[in-house]
Amino acid sequence: MPTEQLATSHFALETVDVPEVADGEVLCRVLWMSIDAAQRAWLQAATYRSAVKVGDTMPGFALAQVVESRCAEFAAGDIVSGDLLWQDYVVAKPQDLTRIVPKRPLSNYLSALGITGLTAYFGLLDIGEAKPGETVVVSGAAGATGSLVGQIAKMRGCRVVGICSSPEKQEWLTSELGFDAAVSHRDDSFRNALREACPDGVDVYFDNVGGTTLDTVLGSMAYRGRVVCCGVVSQYDTTNPVRGARGVPGVLIVKSITMRGFLVMSDFADRYAEGLAALEGWLDDGSLKVREDILEGLETAPEGLIGVLNGTNIGKRMIHVADPS
Amino acid sequence: MPTEQLATSHFALETVDVPEVADGEVLCRVLWMSIDAAQRAWLQAATYRSAVKVGDTMPGFALAQVVESRCAEFAAGDIVSGDLLWQDYVVAKPQDLTRIVPKRPLSNYLSALGITGLTAYFGLLDIGEAKPGETVVVSGAAGATGSLVGQIAKMRGCRVVGICSSPEKQEWLTSELGFDAAVSHRDDSFRNALREACPDGVDVYFDNVGGTTLDTVLGSMAYRGRVVCCGVVSQYDTTNPVRGARGVPGVLIVKSITMRGFLVMSDFADRYAEGLAALEGWLDDGSLKVREDILEGLETAPEGLIGVLNGTNIGKRMIHVADPS
Repeated sequence: MPTEQLATSHFALETVDVPEVADGEVLCRVLWMSIDAAQRAWLQAATYRSAVKVGDTMPGFALAQVVESRCAEFAAGDIVSGDLLWQDYVVAKPQDLTRIVPKRPLSNYLSALGITGLTAYFGLLDIGEAKPGETVVVSGAAGATGSLVGQIAKMRGCRVVGICSSPEKQEWLTSELGFDAAVSHRDDSFRNALREACPDGVDVYFDNVGGTTLDTVLGSMAYRGRVVCCGVVSQYDTTNPVRGARGVPGVLIVKSITMRGFLVMSDFADRYAEGLAALEGWLDDGSLKVREDILEGLETAPEGLIGVLNGTNIGKRMIHVADPS
Repeated sequence: MPTEQLATSHFALETVDVPEVADGEVLCRVLWMSIDAAQRAWLQAATYRSAVKVGDTMPGFALAQVVESRCAEFAAGDIVSGDLLWQDYVVAKPQDLTRIVPKRPLSNYLSALGITGLTAYFGLLDIGEAKPGETVVVSGAAGATGSLVGQIAKMRGCRVVGICSSPEKQEWLTSELGFDAAVSHRDDSFRNALREACPDGVDVYFDNVGGTTLDTVLGSMAYRGRVVCCGVVSQYDTTNPVRGARGVPGVLIVKSITMRGFLVMSDFADRYAEGLAALEGWLDDGSLKVREDILEGLETAPEGLIGVLNGTNIGKRMIHVADPS
């Protein structure tokens, strides 16, 4: 497992036979692969799943089409999503797949209508309990989840401040997505800019990055603020991880702050239908804008992941592998 | 403000005139002074109150008797509690005092029937949401708050494990207070002993100490566990504070853990009557045991506080200054 910064040299592309399908399984053709910073964390150690080891094929969430079914649940031609592999063809068990009947472009089912959108929806509204009039700050604001969090918060009637890493992203967040302000954590004036953008303190901080950005926002929380712990992208690909969030737990006590981690797949699986209905409605009426950052071809996945870790993407990064037949 | 370990040489005892009472104020004779580890934190920096500066008289929660009243709300002879000073006589404003009509020994109104008891009650049940059958771990378990937390958790039907600092305290917790297990954070086997005492993981960790003890318990949390951030005693009196809780926020995400800070005075002031009724009932029927660690005389307050920071107390430390007239 790489302990240094992830590089394309850590990956190898191999050509092998299409896998055999046993009774009760299905053979899937991968169409779209989701690229998620968490995949780098899987290489570090066991998380909510076992660690990915040297020699393993990289796992990842993906959309696929069933090409051969040897089970009753799926038929050839079905579109499915699931935790698959960075491969053209994957054999899967039916219980690990979800059928999709697409009403919108297929790629949307990896962005606003996938784990990403559900994470933004339940994380902001249920974990963060964002209320109208409150100040919501989101980091990784121009990323897949953050860009949706900010827009949902605006619809909820919140003041929304995005933390991102470049003037281009700041411009996109405020001009296109309607954020009230956007600040860059790479600016020397980050701490002051954040304070100025949040004159009444931060009620909800949706944290995708951890590290020193989290430390800084913790210093600006309002009484009874909530920190939604969604990701720690700043710490997945570094040789010098920070020890932990500065001042925790003392900083939580003096302002009665809640920090809450969650995984949408374990915590909200029974409420996906509710979340998807809301997200689909917002996409259909144009109130939620989704931006997808698409690379072409299975072989681009390693550079696609490295880019996400360095913040080169705007919106949801994904890999287009094939079109459905 | 002392940056090294607190010593009695940081304090000076002065004899001054009894203060004058202005219109609308009351003159109080201090009877009992509460000693709280948080008082050391007040010397470090602004917390939920302004920092205590060199030359200031040490503030502290206390019970007192009104000796002269120049307001309508109180009369000479009334017993009151409030945020007063380490002084024999203190002038106070009526809005800063609460009248007490004692039904039990006066000292109980600084322990089980004071901020300490209310902190244990609301912290465990409301912030920690402890449920029957769950495993509750409490640090500072032989201290004022911890010893009540564990007993309330037992009454709630939880498995209760105390973390303390000596075999004597371990014995008291399991033999006298009915804890299921007690482990010492000073033992080399602390981590393993905690794991063995919590085979299903920790559902609620009531944290009074922070530091490396918090790090250790965070490694043993159960899915959807709650960390009640009540105090950080390990960090109030050290020249080498730890940077923050190790692995936060990542460790919160992978197990959907909530960390929540609170201050009973700001968060639950409107529910004191409920808490006090429960606590008083438990004291009256003998289901809650209260142990008070009493030093005699105003001049013992500095050593009393230093002792609390070093864990020499068992139960609630307080200073007996005078008896009511």
